[in-house]
Amino acid sequence: MMQTPLNLTSFIRRAEQFFPEKLIISRTAADTIHRIPYREFAKRTRKLADALTKLGMQHGTKVATFGWNHHRHLEAYFGVPCTGAVLHMVNIRLSPEHIAYVINHAEDEILLVDDNLFPHLEKLAPLLKTVKHYIIMGDSKEVPETSLPNVHAYETLLDDASDTFEFPEDLDENTPAGMCYTSATTGNPKGVVYTHRGIVLHSYALGLADAMGLNERDVVMPVVPMFHVNAWGLPFAAVFFGSTQVLPGPGIIPDLLLDLIEQEKVTLTAGVPTIWLAVLKAQDANPRNLSSLRAIVCGGSASPKGLIRAFEERYQVPFIIGYGMTETSPLVSLSVLTSGMDDLSMDDRIDIRALQGLVMPGLDVKIVNENGEVPWDGKTMGELAVRGPWIADEYYKDERTSEAFRDGWLYTGDIAVMTEFGYLKLTDRTKDLIKSGGEWISSVDLENALMSHDAVFEAAVIAVPHEKWQERPLGCVVLADGQEANEAMKTELLEYMEGQFAKWWVPDDIIFMEEIPKTSVGKFLKAALRKQLVETK
Amino acid sequence: MMQTPLNLTSFIRRAEQFFPEKLIISRTAADTIHRIPYREFAKRTRKLADALTKLGMQHGTKVATFGWNHHRHLEAYFGVPCTGAVLHMVNIRLSPEHIAYVINHAEDEILLVDDNLFPHLEKLAPLLKTVKHYIIMGDSKEVPETSLPNVHAYETLLDDASDTFEFPEDLDENTPAGMCYTSATTGNPKGVVYTHRGIVLHSYALGLADAMGLNERDVVMPVVPMFHVNAWGLPFAAVFFGSTQVLPGPGIIPDLLLDLIEQEKVTLTAGVPTIWLAVLKAQDANPRNLSSLRAIVCGGSASPKGLIRAFEERYQVPFIIGYGMTETSPLVSLSVLTSGMDDLSMDDRIDIRALQGLVMPGLDVKIVNENGEVPWDGKTMGELAVRGPWIADEYYKDERTSEAFRDGWLYTGDIAVMTEFGYLKLTDRTKDLIKSGGEWISSVDLENALMSHDAVFEAAVIAVPHEKWQERPLGCVVLADGQEANEAMKTELLEYMEGQFAKWWVPDDIIFMEEIPKTSVGKFLKAALRKQLVETK
Repeated sequence: MMQTPLNLTSFIRRAEQFFPEKLIISRTAADTIHRIPYREFAKRTRKLADALTKLGMQHGTKVATFGWNHHRHLEAYFGVPCTGAVLHMVNIRLSPEHIAYVINHAEDEILLVDDNLFPHLEKLAPLLKTVKHYIIMGDSKEVPETSLPNVHAYETLLDDASDTFEFPEDLDENTPAGMCYTSATTGNPKGVVYTHRGIVLHSYALGLADAMGLNERDVVMPVVPMFHVNAWGLPFAAVFFGSTQVLPGPGIIPDLLLDLIEQEKVTLTAGVPTIWLAVLKAQDANPRNLSSLRAIVCGGSASPKGLIRAFEERYQVPFIIGYGMTETSPLVSLSVLTSGMDDLSMDDRIDIRALQGLVMPGLDVKIVNENGEVPWDGKTMGELAVRGPWIADEYYKDERTSEAFRDGWLYTGDIAVMTEFGYLKLTDRTKDLIKSGGEWISSVDLENALMSHDAVFEAAVIAVPHEKWQERPLGCVVLADGQEANEAMKTELLEYMEGQFAKWWVPDDIIFMEEIPKTSVGKFLKAALRKQLVETK
Repeated sequence: MMQTPLNLTSFIRRAEQFFPEKLIISRTAADTIHRIPYREFAKRTRKLADALTKLGMQHGTKVATFGWNHHRHLEAYFGVPCTGAVLHMVNIRLSPEHIAYVINHAEDEILLVDDNLFPHLEKLAPLLKTVKHYIIMGDSKEVPETSLPNVHAYETLLDDASDTFEFPEDLDENTPAGMCYTSATTGNPKGVVYTHRGIVLHSYALGLADAMGLNERDVVMPVVPMFHVNAWGLPFAAVFFGSTQVLPGPGIIPDLLLDLIEQEKVTLTAGVPTIWLAVLKAQDANPRNLSSLRAIVCGGSASPKGLIRAFEERYQVPFIIGYGMTETSPLVSLSVLTSGMDDLSMDDRIDIRALQGLVMPGLDVKIVNENGEVPWDGKTMGELAVRGPWIADEYYKDERTSEAFRDGWLYTGDIAVMTEFGYLKLTDRTKDLIKSGGEWISSVDLENALMSHDAVFEAAVIAVPHEKWQERPLGCVVLADGQEANEAMKTELLEYMEGQFAKWWVPDDIIFMEEIPKTSVGKFLKAALRKQLVETK
């Protein structure tokens, strides 16, 4: 067989040859929507590569982006790696110190930044040791007033560049293409490098009928930010398959997302649970026509069943849970319904939708506890380990590599069980697991149960130290609008739990809060919660 | 990213871990149907590998099969390559001389043969120079009376083998996995070697929503024989995705295929046009319930539009044309309908279905004539060249490699045009193209027009020498049942053609025949037709 490399230059070729008139619909500001056909996108991508090359970008150069989801960011997704350089998508929600750390650690030489984020970055610029050029991604061809040297306007650079820049067809498939950093529990973020091969294979997986089935007919709107695990790989795959893309621009505004779904007839969208909770509220208040949607994909943390039920029952939109992490490109599994599940009741189907689902073709998984690999029996818990061609094998120049990558496997830090037929169910993070009297209690199961109660908006369950049992669960609850935090409510919730779990699983207490602290990508920050509630006790 | 190899051992692991109870439904004789769950299939495959290893199979050993589509053949599809050995699927329809040639040329050491084909092969055995063991694939544990040494019964070998045989997980992805030989116009068949990497990537392509969308819910019946280009890769991909498989066993019997579709609720099936013409006749005579079918895939040669229309209109079954060849694993393109085609009339859709369609994600194509690459304008003809990770790069130990493989491309010998939006249309084989007065006439276009006439069952158009115009087209027509071959019919067909083509394209004459000679895989043998009609004139 030919040794044709799996690389992103073939994606650009395919889009311009086969889908020249399909659209990228890009919102760059409150009232500005661009409609750019792939033919034009490919030309602009070639221009960007030419412009960056003139600024000194070479094979292996790290180029950073600091921006939302829009067509210029997409052009960087291809214009940088297709030359052999590496795109570092900086998470704009990191702390200023961490932003400086990741840019310095990756040794980014060129930085593309959204016009509306530039003031934020400008303040950090003195901390950045390697950046030689700043490029402002915005509709204006003018550069804002700044004391920084080498600041360019994206559109002006493109005006001066050639749209016939040629990408090397034979770019080795193991060439690094992209980088994202993932937050660590302690210390600095850890870098993950994506290769062309990994992204190409991950894109094939996204197109499988058994996965997201991304295809030419789709109008896909990645709500998950392009600075977060490649927007789950959707922008790459959409170019490959010629799908129409809707990139919703700065901020994540529920009403705007609903308007875009209705107006652009979005068929597939993806984001974290907190987004969909907010979108659901906005939709309930002012219903839009969602009939174009064939699926909402939700991942990043556990989804309340009420959320799944609301979309599936009230709006007839399949709500599919995905599981993955920065280290896994990210797609590991999806809660697709397999043929054996056709006769299930709606309730049972929603129970299944809430699981992490079927592992993608091409990946291997195992569940490991202190005694080794555990059976797939739907009940034995252990840490989930993953292996495959789109799974990272190290943290970039980081001594913490050996904590997660061992014997050719990525140890995810997630506690899981596998059903007999290979359906994945996460029960906890290793660090959030509650160890009570020598047994394990899944904080996630308890949270899901709490969140299935109508009075509850959000809930987290954490371990608190206990003299006799080592640890005991404590429920932290944010009530739904209009619900009152009082003893009666506490009793009701505890009794509600008692009906569902063994007595020793039920939390000893429930406390009510205004808000549960979250990470920059919307995950519960249980470490902070523990600190706040336990250590200050 | 991890350097996890793309190999078939991961397919077996996936099937046994995730789809242990999904079925392989295998017909091994007139009235014998086996229902084997993947759990059992995986065990039997490990046993086969163990048994063959005991017989001397090593990394790189060539093991031949000589059989129809059934579960034992499928076990060989995995049991051989997953150890690092190479499976050579011998085309049982080759001439005896060519069968001996390919087995000797590949240097096959072990030969698995269907019980009902053994007498045929036994006669050839004296010609086979490298075969050390014969294994009879049949339900009986007894070996038939034979003078050959080292003849074993498949089931007896399995009885004595271990079902815990371990396949190497780290098998290099570029290891050869399979071989097929393709007929040459002159001389011996030419060998194509498939690697694990090529088969894995081809399998991903088969699963794409934009291609066949093969998935866990499918019940797939490959009618195309397993000795013909890996049954188009379907048996491999079905194991990967956990699809139910229906393997229809010895012979290709239209009524039997229809019964299987109805009884087993087949969702997807694939084969050559001559099969579907025969199946259509049988269905018209005795209609079965085909409502489970979501698509019939048809390839290998041009399909009459009447055939497509009959299935699409009369039976509401999407009829999808595929294009490929032994050298391309085989999937190059499929006539899927893209989003721009939604508003077309049924007639226009059928016109599109009859084309070769959208090129698979991951492949590059170009159309080349004597002046170099031609534009994609829907009219400029040239030879189709293909490149990609599941395209062969040589003929196995064959000097004819340089005829087809040049500059990193496979030159297919097919004349094609590309539409502006990358839809592929074959117009001829290079050797069948009619060159009249310095212009090219597509024999395929003329054939399709003839075959769209109700009175025509099959038609081939060939070039006959002409003093003034060098060549002129001649129509060779097999009439439908009940139609009479006479001058009136000839006039009617010629007038029918005149309405559709420029005057100089219309054949000078039409002759009526009982049958059009075909290759072992159902393609028109135009060389034979020319010889018969022209050279004997």
